[in-house]
Amino acid sequence: MHLLISVSVCLLLAVTAVAQKPHPCKSPPFMVGRVTLLSPKGQLVAYERFTYDALGKRIRARVQGTNHNHSFHVDILALFQEGVVYEISYRNQTCKKSALKAPFQPIQIPQNATFQAQVIIGSSSGPGQGLLVNNWFGDIPEQKAKYFLTFTEFGCLPITNLYNSEQTGWILTSFFDLVIGIEDPEDFIPPDFCDTKPVDKGEEVVTDFFEVLLKKH
Amino acid sequence: MHLLISVSVCLLLAVTAVAQKPHPCKSPPFMVGRVTLLSPKGQLVAYERFTYDALGKRIRARVQGTNHNHSFHVDILALFQEGVVYEISYRNQTCKKSALKAPFQPIQIPQNATFQAQVIIGSSSGPGQGLLVNNWFGDIPEQKAKYFLTFTEFGCLPITNLYNSEQTGWILTSFFDLVIGIEDPEDFIPPDFCDTKPVDKGEEVVTDFFEVLLKKH
Repeated sequence: MHLLISVSVCLLLAVTAVAQKPHPCKSPPFMVGRVTLLSPKGQLVAYERFTYDALGKRIRARVQGTNHNHSFHVDILALFQEGVVYEISYRNQTCKKSALKAPFQPIQIPQNATFQAQVIIGSSSGPGQGLLVNNWFGDIPEQKAKYFLTFTEFGCLPITNLYNSEQTGWILTSFFDLVIGIEDPEDFIPPDFCDTKPVDKGEEVVTDFFEVLLKKH
Repeated sequence: MHLLISVSVCLLLAVTAVAQKPHPCKSPPFMVGRVTLLSPKGQLVAYERFTYDALGKRIRARVQGTNHNHSFHVDILALFQEGVVYEISYRNQTCKKSALKAPFQPIQIPQNATFQAQVIIGSSSGPGQGLLVNNWFGDIPEQKAKYFLTFTEFGCLPITNLYNSEQTGWILTSFFDLVIGIEDPEDFIPPDFCDTKPVDKGEEVVTDFFEVLLKKH
């Protein structure tokens, strides 16, 4: 009887321990929010407002920043399911359409990421003074890159993504002002002055969505 | 009467506007917490546990990290009022005493910092999913440096300090697991094997506390 109780307690502890360790998670499918990007090597500072739809695989991003002291502004609508990306300028009433061959990357902790630590940003000493988050890290061998991710424990919301490869150096992406849901569904509808015919073979091809965002293409 | 009401409303709005804009603030005088330091140019990654006493002007910091792929570990007790800093090794039972000529820097938003933005790290869409913080920036002309600070709105707790000078490049300091109060007052008492006689003129002089922490002296 005594042994049985011991075994049961051990099993219970084991189950609790497994349950307590955070698991890779996926962010809510609909979000709006803001992002800052900082790349010391690329001398890049960028600020972005985005609308994110993981179900429809659509992203709208309005980016402004400076790249090697050259300031830029882009308004991007990426429809990954249709394989098309629009670069929109309301001021000039222009809309540059390109074929989008990049895969849609949902905001999530990759399944093969390694859990590093659970920490409190700020403090748990008073109400409204802290935020419980999980830190993860991992490698992307094909890019010779490593990443460090911080996501909230509650809600699986992105906080920071620190990415490092020999090619790019360190890139720090910080998320904030996230709201779960889509504020304006029209964010995903190209304006009237865009050519919305299916992409043909003549169009420029974009394979790196990140480069479109930073106007490097 | 109508005019009087208008004037009252205007005054009320003005007072509210002034009250709503965050003001530079000072962190609680007693804190323990953890810090990560990241300096891409210096190829430095460091992790630190600290105990902070702004009233007694005392800091205890246990730091481990890598600097240009060379790993280091230091245990520092800095008593700014006494003008002395100890580098302690329990394993070797050694204690290196130096004169400390650096000023104590309380954790705070400098009075001449400029308020940039109030943002939510994470989201306000659900409980425990976000943290309200204020962003500040400023210059330190004598160091030809600029800084960007993020502190919590409630409690004035440090979150990040992004510092950039030509000499150092970008240095990102991130605070977490802060607890208001001192967990162990003995953190500030040198161990028995330290020489606690007053500092004399023969001792090495430290003028940059940051360099002690990173074992650069």
